[in-house]
Amino acid sequence: MEQFEMTNTSDTIAAISTPAGTGGIAVIRVSGNDAIEIVNKAWKGKPLTEAVSHSAHLGNYIATDGSTLDQAVATIFRAPASFTGENIVEISLHGSRWIQREVLADLIRRGARTAMPGEFTQRAFLNGKLDLAQAEGVADLIASSSRAAHNLAISQTRGNFSRELNTLRDRLVEFASLLELELDFSEEDVEFADRTNLLSLANQILRKIDRLAASYSSGAAIKDGVPVVIAGIPNAGKSSLLNLLVGDDKAIVSDIPGTTRDSIEDTLEIDGILYRFIDTAGLRATSDTIENLGIDRARAKMRDAVIVIWIIDPTSPLPSQTAELNAFRAANPDKPIITLLNKSDLTPTDTSVSPVSPVSSVSPVSPVSPVSPVSPDTTDTTDTPDTVNTVNTVNPVNTVNTVNPPESNNTPDILPFSTKTGQGLDELRQRLTRLTYGDIDPQNELIVTNSRHYEALTHGSDSLRRAIDAIQNGVTADFIAQDIRETLHHLGTITGAITPDTLLHNIFSHFCIGK
Amino acid sequence: MEQFEMTNTSDTIAAISTPAGTGGIAVIRVSGNDAIEIVNKAWKGKPLTEAVSHSAHLGNYIATDGSTLDQAVATIFRAPASFTGENIVEISLHGSRWIQREVLADLIRRGARTAMPGEFTQRAFLNGKLDLAQAEGVADLIASSSRAAHNLAISQTRGNFSRELNTLRDRLVEFASLLELELDFSEEDVEFADRTNLLSLANQILRKIDRLAASYSSGAAIKDGVPVVIAGIPNAGKSSLLNLLVGDDKAIVSDIPGTTRDSIEDTLEIDGILYRFIDTAGLRATSDTIENLGIDRARAKMRDAVIVIWIIDPTSPLPSQTAELNAFRAANPDKPIITLLNKSDLTPTDTSVSPVSPVSSVSPVSPVSPVSPVSPDTTDTTDTPDTVNTVNTVNPVNTVNTVNPPESNNTPDILPFSTKTGQGLDELRQRLTRLTYGDIDPQNELIVTNSRHYEALTHGSDSLRRAIDAIQNGVTADFIAQDIRETLHHLGTITGAITPDTLLHNIFSHFCIGK
Repeated sequence: MEQFEMTNTSDTIAAISTPAGTGGIAVIRVSGNDAIEIVNKAWKGKPLTEAVSHSAHLGNYIATDGSTLDQAVATIFRAPASFTGENIVEISLHGSRWIQREVLADLIRRGARTAMPGEFTQRAFLNGKLDLAQAEGVADLIASSSRAAHNLAISQTRGNFSRELNTLRDRLVEFASLLELELDFSEEDVEFADRTNLLSLANQILRKIDRLAASYSSGAAIKDGVPVVIAGIPNAGKSSLLNLLVGDDKAIVSDIPGTTRDSIEDTLEIDGILYRFIDTAGLRATSDTIENLGIDRARAKMRDAVIVIWIIDPTSPLPSQTAELNAFRAANPDKPIITLLNKSDLTPTDTSVSPVSPVSSVSPVSPVSPVSPVSPDTTDTTDTPDTVNTVNTVNPVNTVNTVNPPESNNTPDILPFSTKTGQGLDELRQRLTRLTYGDIDPQNELIVTNSRHYEALTHGSDSLRRAIDAIQNGVTADFIAQDIRETLHHLGTITGAITPDTLLHNIFSHFCIGK
Repeated sequence: MEQFEMTNTSDTIAAISTPAGTGGIAVIRVSGNDAIEIVNKAWKGKPLTEAVSHSAHLGNYIATDGSTLDQAVATIFRAPASFTGENIVEISLHGSRWIQREVLADLIRRGARTAMPGEFTQRAFLNGKLDLAQAEGVADLIASSSRAAHNLAISQTRGNFSRELNTLRDRLVEFASLLELELDFSEEDVEFADRTNLLSLANQILRKIDRLAASYSSGAAIKDGVPVVIAGIPNAGKSSLLNLLVGDDKAIVSDIPGTTRDSIEDTLEIDGILYRFIDTAGLRATSDTIENLGIDRARAKMRDAVIVIWIIDPTSPLPSQTAELNAFRAANPDKPIITLLNKSDLTPTDTSVSPVSPVSSVSPVSPVSPVSPVSPDTTDTTDTPDTVNTVNTVNPVNTVNTVNPPESNNTPDILPFSTKTGQGLDELRQRLTRLTYGDIDPQNELIVTNSRHYEALTHGSDSLRRAIDAIQNGVTADFIAQDIRETLHHLGTITGAITPDTLLHNIFSHFCIGK
């Protein structure tokens, strides 16, 4: 990968494009001017050089030493009607590792070279088959492990994001052209472009760019799986919550690199989004040094999480629980927190509150205020007398609410919950989805998932903001035009309309080989 | 797999045919009468129902819920010109696990069903595209992990073994027809078939069958990797030998299921054959219970090995070494053993003995008989005086030879060896190859690799032997004909000319899914 050269596009490249391992079928893809000639030299069967585009041919692959490596099917795609825009042969082989390795080695001996990661897609870009954002969408598509991530990637490969960016650039170009007109007549000190209109246009574009950039936190979380930390005091019900979630949804095995069993407890898809639920040590004041280390680590995980689920145990004294939560809120004012009041099955909760009703209608106080004996449907009767007393102490739930004013967080409302009966589970899942998307409407708005795009949008936003400042401060057109050109540059790097030298290597070296 | 039904061949089946995992491309194969119609219902693009055979088409795969699952290429193979002999669509997808799973699920919703292991190949057999032995060759081809195993499998898929069997069966049918003629005239008590000719013909066929059956021990070893146990007293040089072998040949990581690091030391390919070298505890007389357990296990491994490499350490007393080796030889007279006389660099070995010269020319006594000081090129000078004395005690190497008459083993000759200088390494590798093939000429003879074929050949041999006995004992034609029919039956099961009910399930359930 170090010797990546942008100019070597006349070579014919080859790679195993199917997943590594043994299977019924493996596909080796060969692309380049000489792809058909190179495979044809090894081919015993109808001459591939005479084959029309998009045709498949049964034959034998004969190695340079004359041995038959496999009976195979070669499918011909002729330039420019192929993925890369070049001649492509896809050789469908019996999927033994040995055959895959030997056929690839033989193709190299015959004049192809091993493709670098992403090199097929890179050639598609260089040959104008895809723009950069679409090409990056291809890599994301292959890496997608949930419906939501897949939908974002496929939207990107289909050019939806690119079209949005091109619209923004077109409007900026229009903006710039008005300014350029002034520059042509700069000695005459006229203003062709009405400054009020300019300002309005610039602000519209800026809002659009900022909104796209803001979607990145959701997009990145959806793409990589949303880390959700479950926190609370010891025995608040953290593990029970995990079991409840996993029992209800099909747990799927995480194959995200770097996730280790000791920190990631369970990965599961809710509403198409992949969540990575992280259990933590119970938080409490203790003098135990080892335990405090675990608690420090739990707090660090809460800080790193995209969403925190905080479980309150009403059968334990509340002041320490609220103190801990409030301290965390104060230090992380923007962190979305879902607060569950667990063991609500032990109190006469207003079960008429539908889980799909607006969150605001759920009074956080209602579930515990009318203190009364445990309802008869509680199955665990042994702890009834004690529990009632303990629930009795829950009274000051208001303190949680008062130190948690609605404007400080997206979901300040406490959700009555029971890991025993499943009460509140549907609402919890809906809150997770809502918090993941934030105020973005995934049906109608574009979501940025790529850190490179996010960076370019942020830079574009900065320079456009400078242009707006300049307009407001009556700076002359040439300075404003400079800022606009910078914005155009940054947006242009996303689709590849502008491609700095180092950019392509960085993008395509992160692809898998064979794509 | 339990509900395997032979009759369900009118269903359309679908499976992911490429290796499990994420990759640039994944292929889902759909086969059956309705394959093209089913995929076409999900296809946005040119109607696949109008596509000619062997043509590839770019389009979008749309799920039943209307969402776009992927942009894909569908390749059409129309019956009977396809692998299964049925209509086949191969859908080439972006290789995310999510896309693979969802497209397969969608095909099931649209009326296909998940293919059982080997079901595509089974249909190819049922539709007359392959015979059984060829079909089994396909599974072996996919599982092949060495050049030798691959060559055996590809020969089998190409029908070489089947042709040999059909020739044998034709000759048996000819044989039987002569007998049948007699049966038609049985009341007249004539012998149309000359008994001497019959006997000669039957013996020819029997020799051929027995030779094929005998090749199975080599074939199975080549197919699965040849287990070679390295044995000897402690510190004889067993690990050094492994390192020397691995250093010289490229060690390849074993992916054979069930091989564990603690018993399989190293897997490597020599001359196209995969060897699994197994290190053992040093063998010696000891009262240590734990050590004796290890030694028992080492002896068990030697018994199970296909080849044993026995390393003699001439710097240690020989009597116990020869006693152990002779006891093993006596108990396992047919086990091929390669005896290495290690540390030959410490003695003035006749280095003019070329490693490729015939083994018989190497006198097993020569390396140690002229006792003389250690040659000056020995680098480890510290043990020189002692070593010379110890080497001095080596004199009675003849005892090894006298209790080891040449006819008792394929390679009775002791090979002078040095794990330090590599002396004897080339010859060792050649002996391994020779012992693996035995007296089979792999260029010109067929090798049986499949235990089912071996069993059928053995049964066929038994009944043919009975027929020969019957001829020799003057038994009447009807009894002879019965034995011949039995032989025909057993040989017929190999290619599937005769297919007992349970046979197909047993064969195809061992395939991977998607093939």
